[in-house]
Amino acid sequence: MFKKRFSGMLFSIVFGALVFTTSNARAADPLPSWNDGKAKQSIIDFVEKITQPDSPNFIPPAERIATFDNDGCLWTEQPMYFQAFFVFDRVKALAPQHPEWKTQEPFASILKGDIKSALAGGEHSLAQLVMATHAGMTTDEFEKIVTAWITTAKHPKTGKLYTEMVYQPMLEVLAYLRANGFKTFIVSGGGIEFMRPWSERVYGIPPEQVVGSSIKTKYEVRDGKPVLVRLPELNFIDDKEGKPVGIQQHIGRRPVMAFGNSDGDFQMLEWTTSGSGARFGLLVHHTDAQREFAYDRESSVGRLARGLDEAASRGWTVVDMKNDWKQVYP
Amino acid sequence: MFKKRFSGMLFSIVFGALVFTTSNARAADPLPSWNDGKAKQSIIDFVEKITQPDSPNFIPPAERIATFDNDGCLWTEQPMYFQAFFVFDRVKALAPQHPEWKTQEPFASILKGDIKSALAGGEHSLAQLVMATHAGMTTDEFEKIVTAWITTAKHPKTGKLYTEMVYQPMLEVLAYLRANGFKTFIVSGGGIEFMRPWSERVYGIPPEQVVGSSIKTKYEVRDGKPVLVRLPELNFIDDKEGKPVGIQQHIGRRPVMAFGNSDGDFQMLEWTTSGSGARFGLLVHHTDAQREFAYDRESSVGRLARGLDEAASRGWTVVDMKNDWKQVYP
Repeated sequence: MFKKRFSGMLFSIVFGALVFTTSNARAADPLPSWNDGKAKQSIIDFVEKITQPDSPNFIPPAERIATFDNDGCLWTEQPMYFQAFFVFDRVKALAPQHPEWKTQEPFASILKGDIKSALAGGEHSLAQLVMATHAGMTTDEFEKIVTAWITTAKHPKTGKLYTEMVYQPMLEVLAYLRANGFKTFIVSGGGIEFMRPWSERVYGIPPEQVVGSSIKTKYEVRDGKPVLVRLPELNFIDDKEGKPVGIQQHIGRRPVMAFGNSDGDFQMLEWTTSGSGARFGLLVHHTDAQREFAYDRESSVGRLARGLDEAASRGWTVVDMKNDWKQVYP
Repeated sequence: MFKKRFSGMLFSIVFGALVFTTSNARAADPLPSWNDGKAKQSIIDFVEKITQPDSPNFIPPAERIATFDNDGCLWTEQPMYFQAFFVFDRVKALAPQHPEWKTQEPFASILKGDIKSALAGGEHSLAQLVMATHAGMTTDEFEKIVTAWITTAKHPKTGKLYTEMVYQPMLEVLAYLRANGFKTFIVSGGGIEFMRPWSERVYGIPPEQVVGSSIKTKYEVRDGKPVLVRLPELNFIDDKEGKPVGIQQHIGRRPVMAFGNSDGDFQMLEWTTSGSGARFGLLVHHTDAQREFAYDRESSVGRLARGLDEAASRGWTVVDMKNDWKQVYP
């Protein structure tokens, strides 16, 4: 009698909490900043389908890899990639040590605030600016420079810190996938060492799960202390056809889910969704001029044309930011 | 009264199991294939020191990165790197499609079984052999080739599968570190795509935690199906000064522990143990001619000289395989 009552109480005390937690978790909306609709439902349906052990679409946790573009997918990329603002700020900060920049392009134009003229030289100008601001220091020094900038610099239009311009609905997707056994990776055209110093704090994505463009580094021992020196030499461009290459180099297996927003992500989604078994591709379509920016086919930053044309036939989800997202920034 | 008795029983039922588990885990030897001694103790002391939250040496789980060389550190590397046996076997398998190899060096010598002559041409010969056997196929095809070979090919001296020639004491270190919150990585001069197909099964190390040497790949769409084609062009050599470079590229933070066995690992250990806070470096010294192989300063494979000279002054642990390991292979 006592035994029975005791077991009953024990059961409800020990397992009652579990039952409550489970039903509570199931009832809670994992994506509260998403409006109910096809986009939100496609994410949830896919995750439920591949995590149920008795489903024919079940994917073991070790294979649950999800890749996310950064610019325009996890944070804003207008009116310019945020890393470009970093470059310009660094040129200004370094100018006193480079008196020759006053007359030397593309630096002279940057110092006058004339970005259009600075970039008139095309890729060559851009490469000069990137190398002058990203190379020549050690990896530890560069990390400190990025950290100091990212925690203080403000976006010219919103006045927010750049890390405050991440998308709340995508933060929820990252957390939801991780809660379902996924490893989440960034696969971005941006600089790998520009993202790593803050990706863990802001996105919960550790440095070892960041893939990006890079310059070469060289190991040196200076006064008995080893350093990695950043060289003014391109190592890898993680964009377009480069994204599947970068994914293979760093991750070594094909993702199950891929999230992007521009034609620079096309091949990543193509590679991901061509794998055998259940796969998922999603493009964020920037349709919200009021809360963020509206752009696609004609934009020089984050151009999205082929993705829009082929998403339906490839079974990719297209997010209509204006209608699918309740909230844009946290 | 009932309440008190009930809580007491509840406590012992619910927490009794935990107490038992904890003391049991503490009593169990995490490294049973290691003889008691300085090497074994140094590993355990380090892990205990950095995992205790109240210790001044505490390292948060996210930063617990441990890197392991593969050849000679996790598995045998004598009389040749195992990947060299793979190359020779592939040359033989591909020979019918390459009648010209009968007279063309270094292939002709390989086909005659004369490895010494085949390698007389030095790095150029080696590069020819590697590219002929590692490039030209897709990444998916190469994975299948490696998997077929590694599950059937036998070591010429022991007759064992190569994956049976992994070191039991090191498997225990890998498991012990993971149980203590570490992420374990391979950082090897060997081919990254040669290790990934079996690293998870054999070492519990997933593909995304394997760093190695690589050739370039190219993304292509063939008949509507995307592939990554392996090109006969070197991408990265993950050896000596390349190891800290590869660690930074793939992991993006400095390891806390590094394990190697040759001077090819010197810079990895130097880079790791020069970091601030508690750090750990270990070299496996091959001293066991009877159960494995004995070699160091004069060996062409896995040469270890500078590491032996400087280990003591740098505070690195040196494992004397003969005396420190109860058992070599599983």
